[in-house]
Amino acid sequence: MAIKIYGGAKSTCTGRVLITLFEKEVDYELVEIDLSKGEHKSPEFLKHQPFGQIPYVVHEGLELYESRAIARSVAEWYAKQGSALYGSTAHEKAQVEQWLEVEAQNYNPAISSLVFQLVFAPWFGKTTDEAVVAAQTAKLESVLDIYEKRLSEKKYLAGDFFSLADLSHITYSYYFIKIAGKGAIYDSRPHVKAWIDGIFARPSTQKWLKLAGFAQ
Amino acid sequence: MAIKIYGGAKSTCTGRVLITLFEKEVDYELVEIDLSKGEHKSPEFLKHQPFGQIPYVVHEGLELYESRAIARSVAEWYAKQGSALYGSTAHEKAQVEQWLEVEAQNYNPAISSLVFQLVFAPWFGKTTDEAVVAAQTAKLESVLDIYEKRLSEKKYLAGDFFSLADLSHITYSYYFIKIAGKGAIYDSRPHVKAWIDGIFARPSTQKWLKLAGFAQ
Repeated sequence: MAIKIYGGAKSTCTGRVLITLFEKEVDYELVEIDLSKGEHKSPEFLKHQPFGQIPYVVHEGLELYESRAIARSVAEWYAKQGSALYGSTAHEKAQVEQWLEVEAQNYNPAISSLVFQLVFAPWFGKTTDEAVVAAQTAKLESVLDIYEKRLSEKKYLAGDFFSLADLSHITYSYYFIKIAGKGAIYDSRPHVKAWIDGIFARPSTQKWLKLAGFAQ
Repeated sequence: MAIKIYGGAKSTCTGRVLITLFEKEVDYELVEIDLSKGEHKSPEFLKHQPFGQIPYVVHEGLELYESRAIARSVAEWYAKQGSALYGSTAHEKAQVEQWLEVEAQNYNPAISSLVFQLVFAPWFGKTTDEAVVAAQTAKLESVLDIYEKRLSEKKYLAGDFFSLADLSHITYSYYFIKIAGKGAIYDSRPHVKAWIDGIFARPSTQKWLKLAGFAQ
């Protein structure tokens, strides 16, 4: 296989890497790390990923972690096959980088906090902090207002082409909208709603949902 | 000039872009946005940067924001001149991307919160929240422990070459260590200390410090 992933099929960050591999038509092997047994904090795992987070990958002898770094690298290594995740010009690539950073710096802090409070906290027997949910929902809504304007002008975030920037939003958005059942703030913004429906419908997303056990 | 920057010479994020331009030997023009007058929240500014944050740049007709996206793009557009900020192989570039993400996802959340509490809050007449300072200092120390191990094996984060990943740490670290006077947690980690001293001593950093009014 071309790439070996140490992670979890249900994990949002492993999902980001898997969907990238599906878009780029790259063979892979997934080694499941059992978070419930604390395998990601074991001395053996920490040798490969010192922060104790999944996933990390091995590709041609190189070990690599941080899901957005892996996704970027896969898009470059396999530039000539599958979807053109960086667009087709230097200007398009720059806009993909801009919206990847918007996802990482503006969208993700809010939605990852919400998914933790609404999904993972209950899964692990913790109490949801409603004050955090209210504050982060307000923050996410202000980000979605900017997305609504952008997506009224362009079909996707970086332009009229699906890119790594859109892809990077899929897994956390799926948890928030479909598992936590909080899609209303997307439904009320028609261009955001159409964009989310489009990226959820992609064969790569559907393949991840099946692998994660969220779809049949 | 090759690139026009709308930002502030003292700004950490504008500084990231400026140091990249200095390393790549790219001509620029800086248009100062006066944050004290709220110019970054004006309708005119928001047309170019809808999140109301500095900087944004204009390069060959393309408007671009998010400092790490600008830095990456400058490194690609000017790949053949100045410092090789992505290394010289595909594997080196992947490691630069990994450590850029470590900076953005692990180092920056802690240090940007600390710089806000210790420097910007007093500047703007607000009270420093000591509980936040304690929590974020502990978080930063755990990140620096991982850096100490890495930097005992390699001279720089991505390998034995200075890269965009190291560069991306400079401006916030300078504020925290030199302006807030909190260098002790670096001094106690010898490889981190040598690395910080090295990246602060670079001509590109010195040029930024002069422009920002922090050095003569």
